[in-house]
Amino acid sequence: MSGGPAVDDESPERLARAALSHLVGYGNARLAAAIRDLGPAEAWEQARPRHPDIEPRRDLDRLREVGGWLLCPGDPGWPDGLAGLDRAAERAEPEYGTPMALWCRGAAGPSRPGQVEPTGLTDCDRHGVAVVGSRAATGYGQHVAGELACSLAERGWTVVSGAAFGIDAAAHRGALAGDGVTVAVLACGVDIPYPAAHLRLLDEIRERGLLVSEVPPGSPPLRRRFLIRNRLIAGLARGTVLVEAGLRSGALSTARHARRLGRGLMVVPGPVTSAMSVGCHRLLREHREVCALVTDARDVEEEIGPIGLRTDDGLSSGGGRPAGPRDSLPAVVRALLEAMPARGCVGVAVLAARIGQRPRDVLAMLGPLAVEGLVEARPGGYRLTALGRGPTQGRPGRDDGEDDGLFPTREVLP
Amino acid sequence: MSGGPAVDDESPERLARAALSHLVGYGNARLAAAIRDLGPAEAWEQARPRHPDIEPRRDLDRLREVGGWLLCPGDPGWPDGLAGLDRAAERAEPEYGTPMALWCRGAAGPSRPGQVEPTGLTDCDRHGVAVVGSRAATGYGQHVAGELACSLAERGWTVVSGAAFGIDAAAHRGALAGDGVTVAVLACGVDIPYPAAHLRLLDEIRERGLLVSEVPPGSPPLRRRFLIRNRLIAGLARGTVLVEAGLRSGALSTARHARRLGRGLMVVPGPVTSAMSVGCHRLLREHREVCALVTDARDVEEEIGPIGLRTDDGLSSGGGRPAGPRDSLPAVVRALLEAMPARGCVGVAVLAARIGQRPRDVLAMLGPLAVEGLVEARPGGYRLTALGRGPTQGRPGRDDGEDDGLFPTREVLP
Repeated sequence: MSGGPAVDDESPERLARAALSHLVGYGNARLAAAIRDLGPAEAWEQARPRHPDIEPRRDLDRLREVGGWLLCPGDPGWPDGLAGLDRAAERAEPEYGTPMALWCRGAAGPSRPGQVEPTGLTDCDRHGVAVVGSRAATGYGQHVAGELACSLAERGWTVVSGAAFGIDAAAHRGALAGDGVTVAVLACGVDIPYPAAHLRLLDEIRERGLLVSEVPPGSPPLRRRFLIRNRLIAGLARGTVLVEAGLRSGALSTARHARRLGRGLMVVPGPVTSAMSVGCHRLLREHREVCALVTDARDVEEEIGPIGLRTDDGLSSGGGRPAGPRDSLPAVVRALLEAMPARGCVGVAVLAARIGQRPRDVLAMLGPLAVEGLVEARPGGYRLTALGRGPTQGRPGRDDGEDDGLFPTREVLP
Repeated sequence: MSGGPAVDDESPERLARAALSHLVGYGNARLAAAIRDLGPAEAWEQARPRHPDIEPRRDLDRLREVGGWLLCPGDPGWPDGLAGLDRAAERAEPEYGTPMALWCRGAAGPSRPGQVEPTGLTDCDRHGVAVVGSRAATGYGQHVAGELACSLAERGWTVVSGAAFGIDAAAHRGALAGDGVTVAVLACGVDIPYPAAHLRLLDEIRERGLLVSEVPPGSPPLRRRFLIRNRLIAGLARGTVLVEAGLRSGALSTARHARRLGRGLMVVPGPVTSAMSVGCHRLLREHREVCALVTDARDVEEEIGPIGLRTDDGLSSGGGRPAGPRDSLPAVVRALLEAMPARGCVGVAVLAARIGQRPRDVLAMLGPLAVEGLVEARPGGYRLTALGRGPTQGRPGRDDGEDDGLFPTREVLP
C-alpha cells in the first residue's frame, strides 16, 4: 500500500519545498537566510533562475510512480520529533534544522486515523528507537544490534536506522525478524537502492516499514549528506542506541544529535580489545553523565521509559519513571493487570485470551509494566510484583527487598 | 631476601594479635567487643582458656621458618591504606575492621628506609591498584587483566590481587611480566599453596613481590574468609579494577569495599553476550556515578590520578587532577621535563640518558605527566604539550583545542 494523507502536492509552498530539497547539503547560507526570512515559496522564486535544472513537478511525479508521498512540516503525519531540530541547530546552517520536506515511501504510512498500533513517523518520538553504529561492524556488533532490534520490535518499538552496512543493516533486519516496523532514513533518494547490496533489504523495509529521505528521488548519496541525515535518525526516535563505533565513526554524530535534541543516548559496550568499540567506550567513559550503558532492550526501556510516552513527557535519560498509580493506566492495561493472578505466573497467550487482545499486543503492554515494576518476567510467564498487586504492598521500582547483589539496599556485608 | 623491620615479636600485644588472628572469620561479636574495650592483650588473656590449641609462638616460629614476618598496626611498614577499614565497617563486626595483624612473606618488604621505588605495603594506597575479577574468567577477561596489570606494572604501579584462578592469576602474572611488584592477599596462611595449581605462581609472587594474610601460617582457606579477605585487597590499593564478574561474583564484594573506603572503582566492560561481564555492566549501568569504565592502564591513571598521590590527597574517583604548577613537581621530574625539547618528540632511552635515570623509571615518570597533560605520547616518542612547555601557554587537561571527535569543545557540527 502507498500514499499518505490527501494533500495538495501542487501548492507553491510544497513545490518550493520539493525544489529546495535538492539543495540540501551544500551549506548555502544565503539561501538559508532567504528561506528563514521569506519562507520557502518566495525564497525558491528568487533562487529558481540559478537552478533551471530543478523541476519539482517531475520529482513529485517520480515519487508517485514509486508509490511514495511528500510530507511537509504541518502536514498530518509530520513527525513531531523533528520539532527540536531548529532549536538544536545553534548556528543557522539550514541543513541542520527542520528539513524542507520528507520524501516517504513504504507501507507504514504516517498517521492513519484510528490506528492503535504506532507505526509510521507521526509519533516516532514516542515509539521509535534509533539503533546505529559502525559500517565496519564486527560479527559481535551485528549480532548484538540484530538481537536488540528484534527484541525492541517485539516490544512494539519502531527501529530507526540508516540502512548502511554493518550495524544499520543488522538493526533493520533484526526489527523485521521481530515482525516490527522499521524506518530507514536515507542520504539519497528513496528510489535509489544504496548501498546496492542492500537492494533486497531496502525492498523489505519498504514493504513492511518506511524509507524516508529529505532529498528528492534520484539524488545520489553525497558524502556530506550522510552526516546531515544523521540528525533525522536521532530526531525520529525517542532515544539512540550506539552499538559499535570506532573512534571516528560517523555514527558518533547521530549520538551527538540525540544529545542535542535532549533524547536518550545509550551505548552498548564491547570487548576493550575491539577497535570497533573504542568510540563506544570513550563515550561511556568521558560522558557518563549523559550516556547510559545498555546491554539489551530491557535496559533501553529502563533508560527512555515505557513505549508511548513523549520525549517531552518529562522523562529524562537515566530515567525517572512516572509515579502514577495503577488507576492512571489506560483501561486496556488495567484490564491486563486485573487478568493476572494475585500470586504465581501466567503466560502471554493465556493473558491475551483473557482480555481478548493479540499476544503481541499483550507483550507490548507487559514490557512497560515490567519497566514500571508492576509485573516481572519469570521462567513460567509474567507475574504481578508487590507494587502491581496493589497500593498497600511493596515499594516502587525493584521487587520487595530483593538483594541486587551489587550495592544492595540491605547490605550483605556490614 | 626476607624479614621486615626489627620489632619485638614476643611482646604480649603482638603475641595476642598473632593468637587472635586465628579467630578471623567466625564473627565472634563478644570477642570483638572485648578487643575494642580492653585491647588485644587483655582480650586474648580472657579468651585464651577457651582456645588451648592456639599457640602464637609456634605460629611465629613457623612464619620465620618460611622467611616471613608479622606486621602489626603501628609497626613501621604498616599499610596506611587500611586505616579506613574501621570507619568503613559500619556495623562492629571485627572481621571487617582493621586486621589484628598481617602475616607477610616475600621479597618486597615493607618500608625499606631510603628506597626510591615504591614497593611493599607501606604506601600501597599511593602506588597500588587492585585488579580483581571472576575465577571462571573467559579468555578475553584473562587477556585483558594480564595486559592491564602488565601495563600498570610497567608504569610503576603495584598490582594487588587475591591469587585466585581466573582474573586474579592473570593480574599477578601480568604484573610479573611487566617486571613489577605484585601483592597477593591470601585467605589462607602464607605458607599454604592454595590453590594448589598456583604453587609456582605463588612462589614467583613471593620471590618478587609479597604474600600477605591476616590468618596465621597453616590456616586453611575457609569460604567465609574469602569475602573478608577482599576488604584487604581493596584497602591495600588506591583503586580497584574489576575485569570480569558474573552477577554473583565474589569480586563484586571487593568492588563494594573499594567504594566504602572511598577508593576509585573502575570496571572493564566486555561483550554484552558474555555472562562473565554481566556483573561489570550492571555496576556500570546502575552505579555509574561511582563506577568508571576503563579500558587500559591510561584510563586507570586518569581515574585515580598519577602514581604517588595518597588516597586522601583529595583525588576523588572520576578524577580531578591536582592543579599544582610545574614547580611543585619533584626535582627529578622537573629535570625530566627540562630535558625534553620545546618542540618535537624524544624517545624514552634518550631522555633516560640525558637525566641519568633508567628508561623504566623515566617511563614511570612519563605516565603521570601524560595524565596531567604535561607530556603526550606520540608515535616518535614523548613530547611536551602546551601545558608542559610553560605556564603562559595552553590550558590544562587536553592538548590545545584538539577535537576529541565525540562531543568536542569546539563542535564540528553546528
